[in-house]
Formats: sequence, structure tokens, C-alpha cells
Amino acid sequence: MPTTYAYAARSADTPLAPFEFQRRALRELDVQIEVMYCGVCHSDLHQARNEWKNSIYPVVPGHEIVGRVTHVGSGVTRFKAGDLVGVGCLVDSCRTCPSCAEGLEQYCENGFVGTYNGVDRVSGDITYGGYSTNLVVDEAFVLRVPENLDPAATAPLLCAGITTYSPLRQWGAGPGKKVGIVGLGGLGHMGVKLARAMGAHVVLFTTSASKVEDAKRLGAHEVVISKSPEEMQAHANSFDLIVNTVAAQHDLNPFIALLKRDGTMTLVGAPEHDHPSPQVFGLIMKRRRLAGSLIGGIAETQEMLDFCGQHGITSDIELIPMQKINDAYERMLKSDVKYRFVVDIDSLRQ
Amino acid sequence: MPTTYAYAARSADTPLAPFEFQRRALRELDVQIEVMYCGVCHSDLHQARNEWKNSIYPVVPGHEIVGRVTHVGSGVTRFKAGDLVGVGCLVDSCRTCPSCAEGLEQYCENGFVGTYNGVDRVSGDITYGGYSTNLVVDEAFVLRVPENLDPAATAPLLCAGITTYSPLRQWGAGPGKKVGIVGLGGLGHMGVKLARAMGAHVVLFTTSASKVEDAKRLGAHEVVISKSPEEMQAHANSFDLIVNTVAAQHDLNPFIALLKRDGTMTLVGAPEHDHPSPQVFGLIMKRRRLAGSLIGGIAETQEMLDFCGQHGITSDIELIPMQKINDAYERMLKSDVKYRFVVDIDSLRQ
Repeated sequence: MPTTYAYAARSADTPLAPFEFQRRALRELDVQIEVMYCGVCHSDLHQARNEWKNSIYPVVPGHEIVGRVTHVGSGVTRFKAGDLVGVGCLVDSCRTCPSCAEGLEQYCENGFVGTYNGVDRVSGDITYGGYSTNLVVDEAFVLRVPENLDPAATAPLLCAGITTYSPLRQWGAGPGKKVGIVGLGGLGHMGVKLARAMGAHVVLFTTSASKVEDAKRLGAHEVVISKSPEEMQAHANSFDLIVNTVAAQHDLNPFIALLKRDGTMTLVGAPEHDHPSPQVFGLIMKRRRLAGSLIGGIAETQEMLDFCGQHGITSDIELIPMQKINDAYERMLKSDVKYRFVVDIDSLRQ
Repeated sequence: MPTTYAYAARSADTPLAPFEFQRRALRELDVQIEVMYCGVCHSDLHQARNEWKNSIYPVVPGHEIVGRVTHVGSGVTRFKAGDLVGVGCLVDSCRTCPSCAEGLEQYCENGFVGTYNGVDRVSGDITYGGYSTNLVVDEAFVLRVPENLDPAATAPLLCAGITTYSPLRQWGAGPGKKVGIVGLGGLGHMGVKLARAMGAHVVLFTTSASKVEDAKRLGAHEVVISKSPEEMQAHANSFDLIVNTVAAQHDLNPFIALLKRDGTMTLVGAPEHDHPSPQVFGLIMKRRRLAGSLIGGIAETQEMLDFCGQHGITSDIELIPMQKINDAYERMLKSDVKYRFVVDIDSLRQ
């Protein structure tokens, strides 16, 4: 196994820096991948800085991974050297619980194995993510990436894409449905593109008037400035579904009031401090629902990639070398990115 | 039209007292009902005391009404004199909006007409409820009451019964499903009986150890003291549905944690002050749902009454004369009733 060149956080308060290690020798069902691109998710920063209080250092982040297969284990049947593949947030799960049996490994009742900061179920080793030159993953958790898409711009689909795709599908986004997307960041801009491609009427909610034109370019039919009570009121009781991507603490009631009877708002962003309490009357009077959703299962992630291949959907990205990752984190904290940083992993090979 | 003898609140801070008035002359589709029994709902007290700030005095409460038809308008086809009938929370709605068209009049987009403190759509008069000797209601909002049930104990089905029946049906309570009912009051005790009759595994949550035996008598398979973290933990991730009937402000998180993946907690009680904010992670990590539900539509209320007739289900009641209503309100505030007061309207005829 070749040396793996990576960037890692060695503690909560030091910047990411070069780190070398060896991936495991291929198991029977393993696929070895030369990483080409890795998207930068806000979770990467949370884990690098131990903001979820569960980081085990060194942390090699990265779970929006696209690359090419270089070798496969003796029992691998679904992939061969040269295949363009992706790896998302999961690299294993128990595979036997009801959620795994239903293809919903992200809800594995025994806990899925994260692509980084997870614990390998065989060796007990801590997993290292995609800020690295190569990766070894069981074929069951490897996705096929459509060859017609730009591979760099495809990387964010593995987390930002599936996180919005899954609730849109679950709650029936499609023709005749009015779908709101709250927030125009990494998740929100994918939500707009995906909901539009599914055939829904798409309304983007933002606090920034400066984002209106870009939201329309990305596919929103309408853009609402959510700070404006008048603009919000014009959409009262009209949405079938709202996917709320905003991780910052905010008042959910003005959005719940926009749902029609039996409408659902799904939260996909988890704030550090809980949102103010939603009003019970807002849920009762129209039988509305507040729900949550976590990434997606492997089968659904493949379905999402195929859907994006058919519709030519990728993320809007800013490509950076690995050496700029600490700057990128600072800019991400200021929402200064349109709309996802992606690391060109070749920058680790120089 | 005979004089109607009733009890009314004349202001927010005076007790209910005798009040006489005339019901409207029968319209073509009206049914005139001699009221036999009327259940006492907490909403009656809220409205009598203007706690929702929308009361128009005098307020004649009462929306859990059972009686017999005495006369019908010239166009009435579904009822005749002598029929045993019920009237619940609604006496009219716009009948044209999508919710009305789907038989969900309780979510009428133009606002349903409440049985009391509502505004009649024809005359503009304020409606007077079932704390009265007779009632005139359009046949479209009159329910058929099974003759095999005790009519006094049937009255609370018209609000407490349908309020729990509707979310149980909506979210699929039945064989193979584990259903929780939070709170053992007027709503909760109906929820236990109904969920049990639907074939679900029923768990009642209460803060009072004194209610355990009674909950089992009413049909709960298990009773959990919700103040006990150990008892709660034993049920983690296991419920398909929880119907939360508690109107007092309380922490929802311990209950949300008991839902399995894709499980739903439906709130049917509206607290004066909102519950503390639910944790977003609790919704996201298992794709759980927090929802609300408001009484039920006319068709579903009839379905519920028929279901109760087939299964011999009524409310556990304490029958009182109208003259005791003010005492009953005070006892209701202390939860000192098993489990619903019902007024014997004959007490108004002496």
C-alpha cells in the first residue's frame, strides 16, 4: 500500500497540516481509490475543532470524495480499476438492523461508521477521510459517479447533494408541489437545483437581498426575503414542503406558518443552540409537521448521483489546493463561498 | 321554537348562570335537537373565561352534545324525529375550500363555525353551544350516535374521542404498532381505549404512580412513569407513534427520544406557553416527526362513532346537573375528574 499524503488536525486549536499514514491492506471486498477531489463540508470544521466533543486526533476530514478505482479486493464484483467513484459520509454500518435492511444505513441502529472519525468495525482503527491521496472502502459503500459530470463539482453531491435530495424525495417534491428551500449555502443551493429538476415550484428563502439574482440563476422560481413579514405573508399556507438548511439558531414559526395543511418542514441543519420553541398552535391548526433528515442511504445516494447525471446537476464550487484549507475554513465561517469549496487532491501529490 | 334554557358566562370573571334564549327558526336543511347530555371540555372553561381573548358574551359553552331529533327542515333527508344524534365542535364551514372538499372541515381555509362562540354564516349571530335544552344545526354537521352506547358516556366522544382518534388513524395505529399516549385525562383515557381497540400495543405515560392501575384497566398494555429516566430509557427508539395530550408546558425531548426511525409525536394539546424547544438532533438523527392534530372532520367523526359502537367504547364520566358546572370547572382545573364531566341536560328542564 503506498504512503497516503493527507492534511490532518492534530488538536482542536491547531490548523490543519500535512500528515502521512498508510491505508489498510485491501480486504476481500475492499476498493482502493485514488482520490481526485474532496468537498469541504461544515462538519469537517466542526470535527477538526472538536466542536461536537467527539474528535479523536489526528482528524483527517473529508466525506465528499470523488476518485478513480486503482485496485480491488479478490471478492469485489461491482467495481474495477479505472471506475469513477464516490464516497460520502458513511463507509460501513452493521448491515443487519432494520434500518440497514431497508437501505437506510445512515440510521443504522448500531451506529454507522463515519468516513472520518469513525471506528472501523474490523480493526477498531479510527477512519481517515478524503483530505488524502487515497482511500480504501468496502464496495458496499462506494458509489458510481456519472462520467458526464465534472468530477470536482460532483464531489459535494456526496453530502450536500444527498442531504437535500433525501427529504425532497421523502416528502414528494415534484410537479404540482410548492417547495421552499431556506438558506442559500452549500446545502441550499443544491436543494434549489434538485427541487427544480424534480419539477417542483421552487421558492428560495434568504435574509440577503444580494442573493436574489443568484438564487434565480440556480433555479428558484421565486425568492423571498425572509426578514420581510409582507413577503412572507404573501406565501402563507401555501407550501407542501420546506427544506430548512440553516444551521444557525432562528425562529421556525414564520416558516411553519407558510406550510399548507399537512405540509412538512424538514430540518437538515443542526444548530449549536436549539431554535426558539415552535408554537404548538401552528402545528395543530393545519396538522403541520416538523421533521428532521440525515444525509441519505447508499441506494438513495446512488439514485441521487444518477439523477444528477441525467439532469446535468453539479455543485457550484470554488476549487482550492489543500494548502489553502485553513483559509477556506475561515471563509466558510463567514459564508464567503459560492457555494462549496472543493480540494484538488492533486495538490497533495506535488 | 320553544324557549331554550341554558347556562351562560356573561363575562370572563363571573360564574356560569341560567340564561334563556330562542334558537333560530328551522332552515330548510336544519335539524332541531333536544339535548340530553353535554360533555365538559377544557375549551369550555377557556372560552367562558375569555382565556383565548376571543369570547363574545354571553358564552353558552358545550360541544360534546348528544340528543334526539325533534324536528327537521323541509329539505332534510338524513335525519328524522326520534333519531339519536351528536354534535361536536363544528356546526358549519365554507364547504368549498380544498379542506372542506376533502372532508376535513376542521381545517376549513375560510374558518369553520364553532358550535359556540362562532359566527353563523347566514345570520351573523353568535352560536350558542350544548349547555342548553335544544340545538338547531344543519344536517351536514349532525352525527348519528350508535343506539347501543350509553348516550351520556358517548357525549365526550364528540371532542375528546375524535381528537385522539384522528391522529391515531392518520399515523396508522393498529396491529404491530407501538403507540404511546401521554397524559391520562379526558383526551388521554380516550386515546388509550381507542388505540387498544385498533389493535396497537399501547403504552400510557403519566407523571402519577397513582394512575398506573387505572390506565391498565382502561386498556394500556404498559404504563411508564415519565419522570423516571430509567423507565423512559427502556423504551428508547421503539415507538411508531406518540399522541401527546398534555396541554401543560413540558419538555418534549424525552418523548421524541422514544420514537423509532420515522416515528411521529402528534401534539393535540395546546399549552398556554410553548413547550421548551425540542432538540433538532433528536429529529434529524432518526428522521422523526413532530406534528399537530385538531379534532377531526365530520366524516371521520362519524367513522369514530361507528367504531366506538362496534367496540363498545365510551368515555368514563361523572354525570352532573347543570347547577354544578362551576364546581366542575374548579375540579377540572385540579384534574379531579375520572375522566370527563358530562352535564345531564334534564337538570335544566325542572
